Amino acid sequence: MKLANARGVYVIAPTPFHADGRIDEASIDRMGDFFVAAGVTGITVLGQLGEAPKMTHEESVGIVKRVIARAKGLPIVVGVSAPGFAAMRALAQETMSAGAAGVMIAPPNTLRTDDSIVQYYRQASEAIGADVPFVIQDYPLTFSVQMTPAVIRRIHTENASCWFLKHEDWPGLDKISQLKAWEKDGSMRPLPILIGNNALFLDFEMERGADGANTGYCFPDMLVDVVRLSKEGRREEAHDLFDAHLPLIRYEQQPGPGLAVRKYVMMRRGIIASDTLRKPGAQLSPAARAEVDYLLSRVARKDPRAKL
Amino acid sequence: MKLANARGVYVIAPTPFHADGRIDEASIDRMGDFFVAAGVTGITVLGQLGEAPKMTHEESVGIVKRVIARAKGLPIVVGVSAPGFAAMRALAQETMSAGAAGVMIAPPNTLRTDDSIVQYYRQASEAIGADVPFVIQDYPLTFSVQMTPAVIRRIHTENASCWFLKHEDWPGLDKISQLKAWEKDGSMRPLPILIGNNALFLDFEMERGADGANTGYCFPDMLVDVVRLSKEGRREEAHDLFDAHLPLIRYEQQPGPGLAVRKYVMMRRGIIASDTLRKPGAQLSPAARAEVDYLLSRVARKDPRAKL
Amino acid sequence: MKLANARGVYVIAPTPFHADGRIDEASIDRMGDFFVAAGVTGITVLGQLGEAPKMTHEESVGIVKRVIARAKGLPIVVGVSAPGFAAMRALAQETMSAGAAGVMIAPPNTLRTDDSIVQYYRQASEAIGADVPFVIQDYPLTFSVQMTPAVIRRIHTENASCWFLKHEDWPGLDKISQLKAWEKDGSMRPLPILIGNNALFLDFEMERGADGANTGYCFPDMLVDVVRLSKEGRREEAHDLFDAHLPLIRYEQQPGPGLAVRKYVMMRRGIIASDTLRKPGAQLSPAARAEVDYLLSRVARKDPRAKL
Amino acid sequence: MKLANARGVYVIAPTPFHADGRIDEASIDRMGDFFVAAGVTGITVLGQLGEAPKMTHEESVGIVKRVIARAKGLPIVVGVSAPGFAAMRALAQETMSAGAAGVMIAPPNTLRTDDSIVQYYRQASEAIGADVPFVIQDYPLTFSVQMTPAVIRRIHTENASCWFLKHEDWPGLDKISQLKAWEKDGSMRPLPILIGNNALFLDFEMERGADGANTGYCFPDMLVDVVRLSKEGRREEAHDLFDAHLPLIRYEQQPGPGLAVRKYVMMRRGIIASDTLRKPGAQLSPAARAEVDYLLSRVARKDPRAKL
Repeated sequence: MKLANARGVYVIAPTPFHADGRIDEASIDRMGDFFVAAGVTGITVLGQLGEAPKMTHEESVGIVKRVIARAKGLPIVVGVSAPGFAAMRALAQETMSAGAAGVMIAPPNTLRTDDSIVQYYRQASEAIGADVPFVIQDYPLTFSVQMTPAVIRRIHTENASCWFLKHEDWPGLDKISQLKAWEKDGSMRPLPILIGNNALFLDFEMERGADGANTGYCFPDMLVDVVRLSKEGRREEAHDLFDAHLPLIRYEQQPGPGLAVRKYVMMRRGIIASDTLRKPGAQLSPAARAEVDYLLSRVARKDPRAKL
Repeated sequence: MKLANARGVYVIAPTPFHADGRIDEASIDRMGDFFVAAGVTGITVLGQLGEAPKMTHEESVGIVKRVIARAKGLPIVVGVSAPGFAAMRALAQETMSAGAAGVMIAPPNTLRTDDSIVQYYRQASEAIGADVPFVIQDYPLTFSVQMTPAVIRRIHTENASCWFLKHEDWPGLDKISQLKAWEKDGSMRPLPILIGNNALFLDFEMERGADGANTGYCFPDMLVDVVRLSKEGRREEAHDLFDAHLPLIRYEQQPGPGLAVRKYVMMRRGIIASDTLRKPGAQLSPAARAEVDYLLSRVARKDPRAKL
Repeated sequence: MKLANARGVYVIAPTPFHADGRIDEASIDRMGDFFVAAGVTGITVLGQLGEAPKMTHEESVGIVKRVIARAKGLPIVVGVSAPGFAAMRALAQETMSAGAAGVMIAPPNTLRTDDSIVQYYRQASEAIGADVPFVIQDYPLTFSVQMTPAVIRRIHTENASCWFLKHEDWPGLDKISQLKAWEKDGSMRPLPILIGNNALFLDFEMERGADGANTGYCFPDMLVDVVRLSKEGRREEAHDLFDAHLPLIRYEQQPGPGLAVRKYVMMRRGIIASDTLRKPGAQLSPAARAEVDYLLSRVARKDPRAKL
Repeated sequence: MKLANARGVYVIAPTPFHADGRIDEASIDRMGDFFVAAGVTGITVLGQLGEAPKMTHEESVGIVKRVIARAKGLPIVVGVSAPGFAAMRALAQETMSAGAAGVMIAPPNTLRTDDSIVQYYRQASEAIGADVPFVIQDYPLTFSVQMTPAVIRRIHTENASCWFLKHEDWPGLDKISQLKAWEKDGSMRPLPILIGNNALFLDFEMERGADGANTGYCFPDMLVDVVRLSKEGRREEAHDLFDAHLPLIRYEQQPGPGLAVRKYVMMRRGIIASDTLRKPGAQLSPAARAEVDYLLSRVARKDPRAKL
């Protein structure tokens, strides 16, 4: 099975809404253009922070098609996590037919044993079709499921359609080192690792061997630069740029208000028209909004992109 | 708002499949006829043990319509629990239009604080429509969400469309006593309580004031009798009948294999054609099957219905 | 390493208190005599239902010594589960010096991956001393830790001092079958299995190959009889006796009030003087007390021991 | 009841060990001197990151006494969290007699409902003595217990001995605003808030009204400065200093390796002799050690204290 390369930045796209909660298609288009211009290498839609569970099936398919149409050939990954395989299969098959490059699957938060996790991905792959490339989402902080490197290797080895790892374990640096060591010594076929968790450790994760990022921080263009600088071995520059954003990265990484922060900044950057979230979704308090503004003003001293 | 009465047995219907996993409509019909003949007062479809998450939206709607058509006017409750409000609303509205009497909503297993539970039901009711009667499913063993009596009272008081409580907390006897005391002293408007948890405590739950059962044990006709005997004050007879089934009730209450047990017995009783579960679903081992047969033979000594 | 045999009934002893919460030593003695007379083959003290965390270290050691002195040579197992290895080691070493036969260790409820469970038992054994026989307590309902049969085999194989398994997984029948199959085909050295979970499945667990019970139901003398009848192949008699008690077993198995039920019945049987629990501990409501009395009266029709 | 003021930095002290795991008393003394010189206003010993569960009762008492002796009159808070009240009471009473100013209590990770949390603190306070000042530790990330502001207010209002809040909820900024608003409008008696969570949000938490920090970042002297600058309204200076450390703060905040990072840096600063952790405790990989060194070198460009 031939899988597309996975490196650089696969940006996690939020879903833009009008103030009344309807999907804002013009903003989807503008956002798509922005991502392309920013130099991302792929786009993931309908992830957790794409508010996936708040969309009907029809809305989900519509969003995917709209992003595909705008993405100028970039690979599109579709989040298809669902409480059952029927809905997962339906969304996977319909969006793959529409031109998606693959899907992302998070484990249900009830899985505990190593075997049950491996079995889940086996059954999920069987359900969506063994020819559908899938991404493992490893995010214990949100999903309460802990995958050891050995479990990830088992999933990757068992399923030829396992495409890449969205790595957002925390702590997670040694996990990258372990997986990349196995890749190097041939005890696991190559497994691209794109990191998530709002890029909170992107600086060192790249140095441990990650292939890029798969997250949605409100300055994906900065992520593109850090990944590039790191790949080019320009360590100091990579860290300088990263550290300039870290106070805001940290602020945006908060579960709950984080997505509201992201949308607020993207609105202020003119990428989307409104920072509306669908219910249930945290709203930024005025105090939080002022804090984000202050953080932006501080970032702007070192990165002119943040001058808004 | 006028809500239908809720008492007697609202049976939880399994979803019958053919051996290859397709929905078995003839078995749905036969099962519907059986329930009516057994004297149930309502039917809940697409609950956890109706394998709801394994159905596509279209399949779900089809099952509900088929059951409604067969149920001779009995109220039908539809499980609409979903990870987001969009899917919940879609299923609720479509099935209510088709003639359902109300819906059942379980809380997502991430809720922790009292306020977050109350808010969840408020937002869910808003999402499905304030005119759609809903059932609170209080099942901490499965959902990891703990609702105090005070939380249930808040939900019931806030939402005129709160219909009844599917009570399956464990331990749960004193909870019934508390809620019924509040109902009695007027500090809460009447809240019918139908008990679940495979009826493991039906005997005493009735005596504490429950209005009936809302569960799917493989002999719902027995549940109907125990509820009736208990309401008539025939305590000894109620316990004798209940105790005759308790070894099997306990066996069927096991999470995982329990549903396979239920379907196996319903198949042996001629109610459904196959005991197939969709994936992921536990299969009965030969040893387990033999144990169920043995239990049935023992139940049959005291309840001729179990002679198969 | 030579480990004592483990079969029959290792009763879980409650800790008797005076009404004011002080340890009731006379009741400990009477209880010890009762256990010996009942035919138990071992006694486990300071388990979860021995209210272990409510005792100071000195009290714990005192209880163990008192039970040892009274137990006429029966092997005594001491629950030493603790949030850290220092307290675990201290209690294990002091009670082993006092004549205990081994210790019981439950995993901390934060363990998730297979490896972390295996490592925990390795480190625990190292902490208490590789010569101290230990019992694995496998109770996911209470501890939220799920051990597959393969994990149990790893622990047992790695640690020569692994003595027996207190099996209280739920569902758990096929787990016993799997472990006993490995024992039989030589892929695991013999691992005695004593079942817990208030004996709710003792009837079939014995038939699947369990070696006995390690639980504290208020009629341990009944457990002794069921284990014996089952071992002798007197299946119907075993089930008849078990089923007579099942309504009460189920009632006592409730988390929270269960221990209060157990102590209440043991008080009514004259084994302990008071049914006091230390805080935090559920008290039986008057309604619950009446329900237990009623259950006892029903059990008494088939088992004269319940005539109180 | 008169409670000592709580403001500034109550540093969380690690427990220094020799390489073989014995407690290193000389390092305790040196650390105490360092804290005093750094300008902390209090010291908390035997917290989670003080490796409290790995100590025997005797060791715990010894550590507390040694720190008290060295702290030149600073208030000492003792972590007494335990799975049961007996051990909690024993440690509280013995250390209060030795001169501790109060204790810190974390909720057991099984608490769910609002009432159960409030009741836990009521019973804990009763157990240790109503005259023993206690600190609420609100750390859901580690303890899985979620306390709303209303729950904290209930605990504080019910217990005159409730001293201050160790606030480490995440996200947590609006929580501080809410509590301080209640304090201001008189609907809650004053509740000092010292923030934890490795100070990851110290900058904004101070601006929301926090009274200081109660955490153990390897540069407590920096925390003292940030708290002071913030209190003096020197916002830019506070953020500049904080941001200089943020890359390392983030690195140290990782659960697991975080404590190893802290001890490693404190060892490099000459405060403690060894960075040994007792089992089970993560060791820093060589890669992690090099990353910390690199981070220190970067911090040193802006804060000379980091020049090692």
